[in-house]
Amino acid sequence: MTILTLNSYAAGKWIAPQGQLTPLRSAITGKSFAQLGKYDLDFPAMANHARTVGGPALRALTFHQRAAKLKALAQYLNERREPLYELSYETGATKSDSMIDIDGGIATLFVYASKGRREMPDDTIFIDGALEQLSRSGNFLGQHVATSLHGVAVHINAFNFPVWGMLEKLAPTLLAGVPAIVKPASATAWLAEAAFRMIIESGILPDGAVQFVAGSTGDLLDGLMSQDVVSFTGSAATASMLRSKPNLLSNSVRFIAEQDSLNASVFGPDATPDTPEFDAFIKEVHREMTAKAGQKCTAIRRIIVPDAAREAVIEALSGRLAKTVIGDPRNEATRMGALASIAQRNDVREKAAIIAREARLVYGDADKVTVEGADAENGAFISPLLFACDDPDKADHIHSVEAFGPVSTVMGYRDIGHAAALANRGGGSLVASVFTHDPAVARQMVEASGAYHGRLYFANRDTGKDATGHGSPLPHMIHGGPGRAGGGEEMGGIRGVMHYMQRTAIQGSPDLLSAITKTWVAGSTTDEEKRHPFRMRFSELDLGHTLWTESRTVSLDDIEHFANFTGDTFYAHMDEDAAKANPFFPGRVAHGYLILSFAAGLFVDPAPGPVLANYGLDNLRFMKPVSPGDSLKVRLTAKHKTRRNDEYGEVRWDVAVFNQSDEQVAAYELLTMNAL
Amino acid sequence: MTILTLNSYAAGKWIAPQGQLTPLRSAITGKSFAQLGKYDLDFPAMANHARTVGGPALRALTFHQRAAKLKALAQYLNERREPLYELSYETGATKSDSMIDIDGGIATLFVYASKGRREMPDDTIFIDGALEQLSRSGNFLGQHVATSLHGVAVHINAFNFPVWGMLEKLAPTLLAGVPAIVKPASATAWLAEAAFRMIIESGILPDGAVQFVAGSTGDLLDGLMSQDVVSFTGSAATASMLRSKPNLLSNSVRFIAEQDSLNASVFGPDATPDTPEFDAFIKEVHREMTAKAGQKCTAIRRIIVPDAAREAVIEALSGRLAKTVIGDPRNEATRMGALASIAQRNDVREKAAIIAREARLVYGDADKVTVEGADAENGAFISPLLFACDDPDKADHIHSVEAFGPVSTVMGYRDIGHAAALANRGGGSLVASVFTHDPAVARQMVEASGAYHGRLYFANRDTGKDATGHGSPLPHMIHGGPGRAGGGEEMGGIRGVMHYMQRTAIQGSPDLLSAITKTWVAGSTTDEEKRHPFRMRFSELDLGHTLWTESRTVSLDDIEHFANFTGDTFYAHMDEDAAKANPFFPGRVAHGYLILSFAAGLFVDPAPGPVLANYGLDNLRFMKPVSPGDSLKVRLTAKHKTRRNDEYGEVRWDVAVFNQSDEQVAAYELLTMNAL
Repeated sequence: MTILTLNSYAAGKWIAPQGQLTPLRSAITGKSFAQLGKYDLDFPAMANHARTVGGPALRALTFHQRAAKLKALAQYLNERREPLYELSYETGATKSDSMIDIDGGIATLFVYASKGRREMPDDTIFIDGALEQLSRSGNFLGQHVATSLHGVAVHINAFNFPVWGMLEKLAPTLLAGVPAIVKPASATAWLAEAAFRMIIESGILPDGAVQFVAGSTGDLLDGLMSQDVVSFTGSAATASMLRSKPNLLSNSVRFIAEQDSLNASVFGPDATPDTPEFDAFIKEVHREMTAKAGQKCTAIRRIIVPDAAREAVIEALSGRLAKTVIGDPRNEATRMGALASIAQRNDVREKAAIIAREARLVYGDADKVTVEGADAENGAFISPLLFACDDPDKADHIHSVEAFGPVSTVMGYRDIGHAAALANRGGGSLVASVFTHDPAVARQMVEASGAYHGRLYFANRDTGKDATGHGSPLPHMIHGGPGRAGGGEEMGGIRGVMHYMQRTAIQGSPDLLSAITKTWVAGSTTDEEKRHPFRMRFSELDLGHTLWTESRTVSLDDIEHFANFTGDTFYAHMDEDAAKANPFFPGRVAHGYLILSFAAGLFVDPAPGPVLANYGLDNLRFMKPVSPGDSLKVRLTAKHKTRRNDEYGEVRWDVAVFNQSDEQVAAYELLTMNAL
Repeated sequence: MTILTLNSYAAGKWIAPQGQLTPLRSAITGKSFAQLGKYDLDFPAMANHARTVGGPALRALTFHQRAAKLKALAQYLNERREPLYELSYETGATKSDSMIDIDGGIATLFVYASKGRREMPDDTIFIDGALEQLSRSGNFLGQHVATSLHGVAVHINAFNFPVWGMLEKLAPTLLAGVPAIVKPASATAWLAEAAFRMIIESGILPDGAVQFVAGSTGDLLDGLMSQDVVSFTGSAATASMLRSKPNLLSNSVRFIAEQDSLNASVFGPDATPDTPEFDAFIKEVHREMTAKAGQKCTAIRRIIVPDAAREAVIEALSGRLAKTVIGDPRNEATRMGALASIAQRNDVREKAAIIAREARLVYGDADKVTVEGADAENGAFISPLLFACDDPDKADHIHSVEAFGPVSTVMGYRDIGHAAALANRGGGSLVASVFTHDPAVARQMVEASGAYHGRLYFANRDTGKDATGHGSPLPHMIHGGPGRAGGGEEMGGIRGVMHYMQRTAIQGSPDLLSAITKTWVAGSTTDEEKRHPFRMRFSELDLGHTLWTESRTVSLDDIEHFANFTGDTFYAHMDEDAAKANPFFPGRVAHGYLILSFAAGLFVDPAPGPVLANYGLDNLRFMKPVSPGDSLKVRLTAKHKTRRNDEYGEVRWDVAVFNQSDEQVAAYELLTMNAL
């Protein structure tokens, strides 16, 4: 078999290793499978290349254009998964483990492509939150925006998910317009390098957008400055060491850490062994112990169950573990493959021995395992190990020592408060799951335990097969956690993009804010000279383009007619005395929907034209009652061009309805689909 | 004169100093004004008191209840400003300086009280962002929430704004439900202690909510754990030293740093000396140099102007500085008081000497100043110092050395890109201001410079007197900045509250999410057994309470009638052929507003009752066209009780409109005002 030699990729060039090479061994056979070495990399030059070539090229694209690149990349990789699966087997992963890694990584790109297009503007400046009124007159306003950092992101990835780990960091980084230097973990670097090579081969990303360090990162981190970001996944010890570098501290370099944690799964007090939740719980705990041979930062390390259910849980889990086929991950029957390396197995044995001081082993043997179709000696196989702890309140190691393998500890609790307290003993975790069908238990757990977990995962008979899994971070939801979990956050949709952008509070006049945000802001200049706005194509329409309508009187007849026609005979419209008794009305008033309908009658241009459909309306507020005899007129202003495809564009309009005294009676935003 | 002896406040008790006392000197007279000493404080016990007494008491309150306490506190302090002004003069502050500090701090409490009530729920769990659909069936959903951290916040404040600095940190912390230990800077601790004493005397906050360390913080920081937060304002050197403490790093303790930075003010290329922007610019720069004698972390240190305008700016500024009366801050004529201490004056002189290596002094004398009505020798007075730098590209100190006093440097630029590059040379700042009337210049500055600044402040003829000031952080907007500014954020409305809360991704079934968020989620159980929802008072209404209406057919006559009545004769409703040619419609369709109006006709209960008014509507989306002959029926479900006062409560309803094939044609949220 050829041994793969891994290369680095710096400033647009592949760099081969020099001198003596270090072998990387297959987790299954223990034989050399790939090799890496010393690379002649100029780290300051790499960072500079990212900052001066990759960054500007990415920042020249809008969020929608960057999202389109992520989608193209996802499609490109999706068609080339097979060779990646092959390389993945040698990391000890089964096919289903590899799917978490490879398909999961590609899915993350797809979700970011979609969210970038749906939740970010077709622009380079992101609008964060609502406009703030900073003066009574409305001449001075505040708006938070976010812009791309001008630095480079250094991604330091863990060995367990070489593809997903790379892509879940790259997706938000590239969407933010920031270039990245990727450093994979050595143990499984051949798989990361293969996926990275595909990204380069695709030619989708601009030069300088991504670089790759196969070996040591040397002095890379020492050269980072205030616009740079480090995103780290791995052990707490390494994170602490890296984040204390003086230049990172003195330049306030952002350091996002995601560390393995002592994640818990709680079996709710309502969920007794005779409920459907019991089977779901046992299945999930078993899956989390054995998937990726327990090498998941989200794996369940602590199984927290009602005292009364403890023996039943141990029995059911042990039974399921006993049936788990361990062996060659290429075999379809195999449910659990190998750990990533012999070193990893030694570490798991060491940690399990510490746990054994406080808990008794109820399933498995750290030194003995039955392996199907593979070499139990040279492959990094280990048996699942289930412990039971009788006094989890007094115990310490079971809450703090992580054996990064198929190892977990069962412990009993008295009541839900005790369960939460035990879960919180982990000192901060990435995820805790709770199996309950009782909404009150769910609420209590969030109140008592939310502050200690980045994610709380609730499963029961209702979520069934739809539940996405305790251990699966989703691109929509944040991944990270407080304390021992590193205090960082990744993903969580657009939240994850913001780690690579700077939020800036903008204060200024309406005109300037409109120009900065490409969103017309009330009080800005309007353009009333041009033709009816419904006559403007998406491409022709300028923000601020405004129509002032004629006015129309609302008569008592109109109100009664509308009431009888629609069936909305609410007393405030129909009964003068009753309406007067209402604290908000001076007497009978027009229906809100009558105001909306008349407003449309005033501004709609009826003949076919570029405005194709009204697809919705947002933020409608009725500001003042309209009494019989009042008249209405409308200001319609093009506010924002939200997005476009090849055929249509979406336009948001600001609508203000005034009465005869120029008092505003209603405000809303109208949404239309326009021809390009 | 009596010398004030400052006390600490720990676990509900005032603690007097022991042993030898250290004098704190008046900035004006140089005489001992107050004193502090060694306090017998058990820091682990203080932190424990906060975590176990203060935290639970605060967390038992909803955000609205905490907001009410902030408002009461603001009112209490507002009535007691006079003695605080008196103490403030001795810090060297003029009356208008004191108003920034004292009134500004109280205003921050008021804004947080208001935002807490308007932008947070009447609950203990905050809903962050939108619901995420995690499975096709809708049985598994995601929602981010935030809950109070269970730890203690340690606030380390700067000497320049002893009251504002304390309150701007306390407001978001207490609103988050987190107790705080306040450590003021020694130089002006007497003013902080007086304001803190009022907070305790008010009796508004629960025991353990706030504690006060007048002297050294000893080993306080060394005992912090993963649920604790440090919020620091001060120098970069101290921040770096504190944040590198091993226990803070290994426990991922949140460390929010706000450091002084080399803030810039840019005079736009469009804003020549003959524009109204020139006067505004000179006024603002002068104000920022002299307010609080330049001891503001946001003060303008770098004055970046077009090369052509440089001499005019120097001349106008020097003229204005020459007219600035310096002296006893109690005198009404005084425009600039003293620095906080003689030590501070020595530091400013030292830093000014470094700047003088790269820039020539064009106004003032570091060693000589004319002082009115006070002692120039023993008071910490200094003259404003204006420097001019001829080659700001080559210079280094003017971009990195901060003289924390009335000191600033003028430099010229070639074009807007050069101006942004110079502003960015500060390596990250709290704020940069830009004086421009050109929207394109504003947009360019955000693109080129946004990533380097926590705030960009635009002023011009339009913002006039409404502009709130370059140097004034507002509670609505974030205060903080990247790199040299510390990389932290404070305030920014509810964003600032989140620093003291943990964001958690919740995944689960609709029923559980409804219970956790106290917001009915589509797919949850509904209750259709009870009486018409319009017959339920705010207090009686349960979330999920649902009405299914009868159905009603929409005829072509209805559509034509509605069109003619409202005037909305858009072709999609009136012309079959034209409607068919539209890509979204199968032929003539009902108006969206007709659907809304008929829906109201179906669900409204007309007689007087607890529902008093429909005050708005959110998130309306038309999902499917309604053709003549289709029929409509409506599901109306109580979704969320937003807020209440003593008379009314606001209710948000989920409205779903279906056609005869049970396809949803419209979705929206209806807002009503209900009697309690």
